Amino acid sequence: MAEPLTREGILDSAEQVLRRYGPAKTTVVDVARALEVSHGSVYRHFPSKAALRDAVTQRWLDRISAPLAEVAAGSGSAEERLRAWVRTLAGTKQGIAREDPELFATFRRVTDEAGEVVAAHVGHLAGQAGRIVADGVASGELAAVDPVVAGRAVLQATALFHHPAHADEWGDPLLADQMEAVLDLLLDGLRPRR
Amino acid sequence: MAEPLTREGILDSAEQVLRRYGPAKTTVVDVARALEVSHGSVYRHFPSKAALRDAVTQRWLDRISAPLAEVAAGSGSAEERLRAWVRTLAGTKQGIAREDPELFATFRRVTDEAGEVVAAHVGHLAGQAGRIVADGVASGELAAVDPVVAGRAVLQATALFHHPAHADEWGDPLLADQMEAVLDLLLDGLRPRR
Repeated sequence: MAEPLTREGILDSAEQVLRRYGPAKTTVVDVARALEVSHGSVYRHFPSKAALRDAVTQRWLDRISAPLAEVAAGSGSAEERLRAWVRTLAGTKQGIAREDPELFATFRRVTDEAGEVVAAHVGHLAGQAGRIVADGVASGELAAVDPVVAGRAVLQATALFHHPAHADEWGDPLLADQMEAVLDLLLDGLRPRR
Repeated sequence: MAEPLTREGILDSAEQVLRRYGPAKTTVVDVARALEVSHGSVYRHFPSKAALRDAVTQRWLDRISAPLAEVAAGSGSAEERLRAWVRTLAGTKQGIAREDPELFATFRRVTDEAGEVVAAHVGHLAGQAGRIVADGVASGELAAVDPVVAGRAVLQATALFHHPAHADEWGDPLLADQMEAVLDLLLDGLRPRR
């Protein structure tokens, strides 16, 4: 290939190869072959198959959290932002599962193996939710003994609607209403008692 | 075998055979062979492999929901009962996953195929939680626009701690505290505003 080999170019190719062969069978040599470069060229950017897998996973998870950061930092009341944040998280995950089930299945298998990257992503998401709660507490709109704990609780209490392990249940037509019922209950729990 | 062939005896045997061969490879003939009876004798109790699989699943799920029914119907405040109910549900599932991972894995695969039986079980659990909430509303201890909706929301908001799809995450030493944080938030949401 004529273009210079970039980190992003390798990740694009790795995503395609992973989708075709699956995480178990994909090797750095496969990715190099798809790029028409030597495997040494790929190893210069990623020292191991695990490093390449983690980088692909990281980029995919970053694509999910980027729009959420905008919602978290956006204007509006803390309640509105927290609801919008959960809806965006659930909508993004459910959308990929519905529209590109093959990619979704590939990434479920990849993330199963990239434990540390996924743990960091979950921590990042919990932090986003926690900051929205903290904003609400600062303005007097919400009450929480510990916004960090409350943020993680909101993330965990909505797992059914965004955690990939529940993808088989996302076809239920009642799910959207059920998510709103959980959000109502959580927001009622976060509102101050006067 | 000398004893008369009972429905329970067939289910006991089917559980053992499922554990040994897995749901995909288990046949009615395997179960009959383990019992040293003709497959016709098994078919007299269960008309198909699917019926046998559903009955095994049903019995397993009933073992999980039976102690929960006692907690739901027990004495104490609605808040105490709801917390105890979620803790019992999570503790039972996590306990099986930890103490008999092979049985747990077998039943995860079996329940994947027994959609209607599982849906009925989930509905049954949501109903138990809903009745505790309804009791709390009746006594003025809790407030909920619709106890049925709130009961299902409590079940769904605690999925991370009891849904088999999350078994890989149950080793986290922080999980018990995180469940309590979710319970605190849900109960805060259910308490009336004075």
